Amino acid sequence: MTTKSKSRILRDAMADKGLVHIMASHAPLSARLAEEAGFDGVWASGFELSALYGLPDVSLVSMTQHLDMMRAMSEQMDLPIVADIDTGFGNAVNVIYAVEQYEAAGAAAVVIEDKSFPKVTSLVADGRQELLRIEEFQGKIEAACKTRKDPDFLIVARDEALIAGLGEPEALKRAAAYEEAGADMILIHSKKKTPDEVESFVNAWHGRAPVVIVPTAYPEMNAERIRALGKIRMVIYGNHAIRASVTAMQKTFSAIIRDGGIQKVNEEIVSVEEIFRLQRMDRVKAHERAFLR
Amino acid sequence: MTTKSKSRILRDAMADKGLVHIMASHAPLSARLAEEAGFDGVWASGFELSALYGLPDVSLVSMTQHLDMMRAMSEQMDLPIVADIDTGFGNAVNVIYAVEQYEAAGAAAVVIEDKSFPKVTSLVADGRQELLRIEEFQGKIEAACKTRKDPDFLIVARDEALIAGLGEPEALKRAAAYEEAGADMILIHSKKKTPDEVESFVNAWHGRAPVVIVPTAYPEMNAERIRALGKIRMVIYGNHAIRASVTAMQKTFSAIIRDGGIQKVNEEIVSVEEIFRLQRMDRVKAHERAFLR
Amino acid sequence: MTTKSKSRILRDAMADKGLVHIMASHAPLSARLAEEAGFDGVWASGFELSALYGLPDVSLVSMTQHLDMMRAMSEQMDLPIVADIDTGFGNAVNVIYAVEQYEAAGAAAVVIEDKSFPKVTSLVADGRQELLRIEEFQGKIEAACKTRKDPDFLIVARDEALIAGLGEPEALKRAAAYEEAGADMILIHSKKKTPDEVESFVNAWHGRAPVVIVPTAYPEMNAERIRALGKIRMVIYGNHAIRASVTAMQKTFSAIIRDGGIQKVNEEIVSVEEIFRLQRMDRVKAHERAFLR
Amino acid sequence: MTTKSKSRILRDAMADKGLVHIMASHAPLSARLAEEAGFDGVWASGFELSALYGLPDVSLVSMTQHLDMMRAMSEQMDLPIVADIDTGFGNAVNVIYAVEQYEAAGAAAVVIEDKSFPKVTSLVADGRQELLRIEEFQGKIEAACKTRKDPDFLIVARDEALIAGLGEPEALKRAAAYEEAGADMILIHSKKKTPDEVESFVNAWHGRAPVVIVPTAYPEMNAERIRALGKIRMVIYGNHAIRASVTAMQKTFSAIIRDGGIQKVNEEIVSVEEIFRLQRMDRVKAHERAFLR
Repeated sequence: MTTKSKSRILRDAMADKGLVHIMASHAPLSARLAEEAGFDGVWASGFELSALYGLPDVSLVSMTQHLDMMRAMSEQMDLPIVADIDTGFGNAVNVIYAVEQYEAAGAAAVVIEDKSFPKVTSLVADGRQELLRIEEFQGKIEAACKTRKDPDFLIVARDEALIAGLGEPEALKRAAAYEEAGADMILIHSKKKTPDEVESFVNAWHGRAPVVIVPTAYPEMNAERIRALGKIRMVIYGNHAIRASVTAMQKTFSAIIRDGGIQKVNEEIVSVEEIFRLQRMDRVKAHERAFLR
Repeated sequence: MTTKSKSRILRDAMADKGLVHIMASHAPLSARLAEEAGFDGVWASGFELSALYGLPDVSLVSMTQHLDMMRAMSEQMDLPIVADIDTGFGNAVNVIYAVEQYEAAGAAAVVIEDKSFPKVTSLVADGRQELLRIEEFQGKIEAACKTRKDPDFLIVARDEALIAGLGEPEALKRAAAYEEAGADMILIHSKKKTPDEVESFVNAWHGRAPVVIVPTAYPEMNAERIRALGKIRMVIYGNHAIRASVTAMQKTFSAIIRDGGIQKVNEEIVSVEEIFRLQRMDRVKAHERAFLR
Repeated sequence: MTTKSKSRILRDAMADKGLVHIMASHAPLSARLAEEAGFDGVWASGFELSALYGLPDVSLVSMTQHLDMMRAMSEQMDLPIVADIDTGFGNAVNVIYAVEQYEAAGAAAVVIEDKSFPKVTSLVADGRQELLRIEEFQGKIEAACKTRKDPDFLIVARDEALIAGLGEPEALKRAAAYEEAGADMILIHSKKKTPDEVESFVNAWHGRAPVVIVPTAYPEMNAERIRALGKIRMVIYGNHAIRASVTAMQKTFSAIIRDGGIQKVNEEIVSVEEIFRLQRMDRVKAHERAFLR
Repeated sequence: MTTKSKSRILRDAMADKGLVHIMASHAPLSARLAEEAGFDGVWASGFELSALYGLPDVSLVSMTQHLDMMRAMSEQMDLPIVADIDTGFGNAVNVIYAVEQYEAAGAAAVVIEDKSFPKVTSLVADGRQELLRIEEFQGKIEAACKTRKDPDFLIVARDEALIAGLGEPEALKRAAAYEEAGADMILIHSKKKTPDEVESFVNAWHGRAPVVIVPTAYPEMNAERIRALGKIRMVIYGNHAIRASVTAMQKTFSAIIRDGGIQKVNEEIVSVEEIFRLQRMDRVKAHERAFLR
């Protein structure tokens, strides 16, 4: 009897359900909550981890920090993890090291983007969102594919051509080139406020590689609408765990200051016992009973 | 012109205001939110960090992990940090190392408790909540005091006699002994569901060292009631950041599953731009403008 | 076709050769050198890692630091690793967590000792070398055995009765109790300057569990003499990597100061190219040729 | 009474002695040995740390790992540390973060090089050793200078024009531009097997910024010869700690295998007691006597 790898589980879920829902996570706690809520997998998000550390998402949080957190998630719950490895922390040589490390640490998939390192915010002048030459990024995808040990480990190419303002033809050309280099899936991203640009891309895409989307900016693109397009197999909710947490902490913190104490907020938030449950204190109690003498 | 140390700032706040409000934090993001909400300081909580990692709070999260997170908090906001160092990670020799490390990493205060290492849950048979012999814990407090470089750095002794069911006389005896050993403040903890036990202790306490409380179990003990007692200078809200976060993530995650997308939750949680603000993207933009060429 | 686990490889080596030689290591570099020299395995030594960090070996280096270094060793060479986990970082609950983490990080075996936490130096008054009660340590061994996923993963019980001055009968009684609790091997340690005490123990030991020794203090106890005793299957050279390194750095550093430059030492130490070889620069070159475009 | 910063101490040593000798280090132990040998400072070397981890020096070891090791060095000895931060881990925004972190962690100086990230080995086709445009690197130097809190904190610009085969005029032009941007010193590097190229550069250099050299490839360039040139204030011995360690471990390990034990090597390497001394066990003993009860 062999156990299915997390990568296999994720592939099977996409095949069986047609579409998997992946929730962003910044730590094992949020990953466990995603598991309990019924998501199909967890997005080990660089953006959320940067935010947790109070840092902008411009390649300041290191691979060591991201990998450590991803490993901790992997140890504390059973969902497949899709790891956000940005540009792969450098060139193809760095990608090889990253894929070795993330696969060993329990990831089911990695997403590698075609921007140049280091990230520059989308907020400055347009020309800064530089993409790698196509052949250079193909080298990174090929390196990732050759490196994985489990052939089911998913290599997802993130195509930033629309974000960089290069237009749909360039986005399609890149998607085809990345598929040719071995990418299992294409993540297409847009900063438009409506789904039109992404929908148009998906309709125009005739490759074999299924599509991944991250509908942060166009929340009306829900499961129904995604399924109607027919080629998207994965949707990533990229930052809702950290946004929900901030919302609640802001509200709770200001209430405590306003009330001069916790007498009111105590009713509005989960009990300490609920945290104990999530920490699996019952397991500790059982171990103490069994092994402490 | 000299800058006041964070320890001095915390001492001055207690002197000026009579009572400071300290919010638990598990990461720089929650620490920054506590700062924005108006708290006087941040509690670098072992319980919250354990919960973030999905682990029970029984000495599994290492000093390395806790210290790294506390240092990251210290770098990303300006409030004084009160560090929860449990038992000091071992005996007096370990306390010396811990105080060196936490002070260097930016803590304003440490809280050391008189339990024996490793922690055992309060959930098992009573006898397990063993406390150190008084002289042994005095040695740890003295070691901590001798180690600090800044004489304002606060050494807080956490007296667990009430938790251990040893009664008020033992709690008072220990508090006096810890003050004698050099403790700047006494943290008294109770697991009763009402403030009576703690209030009784505070009324009976006639030492010079002010008192710290953590009113998780008796939320009706608000600032007004605390001030009336007259000897408490610090109140720590020990786990409300993580409880608020869990509450919100549970609600948001189940809504996304129910709705098949983010179209509804998007309205109920803070925007991505609010996260950018907390990450200080404006600072990055300014740096990009000034230094990228 | 299945791959043998490192634990199985180590067990098979003991069965085939009768005695395996395990070299202490503080980092992947020394582990790789041990592999090249022909050792059968690597001892992920707490003492060597503490020394590398300039710290005394009294439970200051955390499990996080030791585990990270052990994982790095495991990634960079193929020998089985015997992990020195001291007392297991606390009680049986901590042992469970440690065994989960070390097995997942690639260890083939763990050695758990029957001292109480935290370590106290052998240099202070005798009474301090306190051992756990036998039943308490049995609970830790049982917890370790129940936790391992690979049944071949070795749980080695380190019996410190001779070190604690409790005499051979106590050492034998403990060894038998630890075997009964499930220990796969017994590590017997002595601080005598000759092998007599250890040899006497081995001759008197009639359990099924083979014996491990660490002959630092009695270097004349070589392979020939060990094989003659017939029950020892593993010898650990506990600190010779770091001692060799210190010897060479002291000599090289003082020569550079004396000579006012590196012109002489350059001839006496390996070339930079030899370091490149150990870093596997050839692999990087091959990757650059294959994937950089 | 104020204490001199490590940066001030390093600047004063250069002023007083004319030339300081800086020894490469990969860990606190080697840093402490450098201090005992009489060096003026320690080079927190990325090459040595990569080698310790068994990894090639191509931006695989993260800033987190390098910074943690540098901080540990800084805690365990008193010499000023010159931190090797490669290209600054990205662009000017990453440099700002790095300078904040390294200064806070105790560095006295950072060396930033003008290569593009990530490093490519010098071993592949020449064109790959790409340097940043001059203005782009000036932006990084300016960003570093604006970020430091201590005005004495040294920003050293590493000029790789000779390494990249661009010739002396380009190297001089870059050095002048980097000085103009605020660099306190210029590190000039050459891969020639003789000092000629570096000596020629130094003779032609008429800027105010003193020069740093790393004479790995031309060991005959000793203190006497360096002083004769008159403009070099710092010499870094870049990899001799790790090369000495490897030499000794190879010899010791093969001797143990050959001898079937440690009986011979035990005489040739420092005693365990010498390691205890370097770990400062005497301090632990004193603390145990003072504080354990």
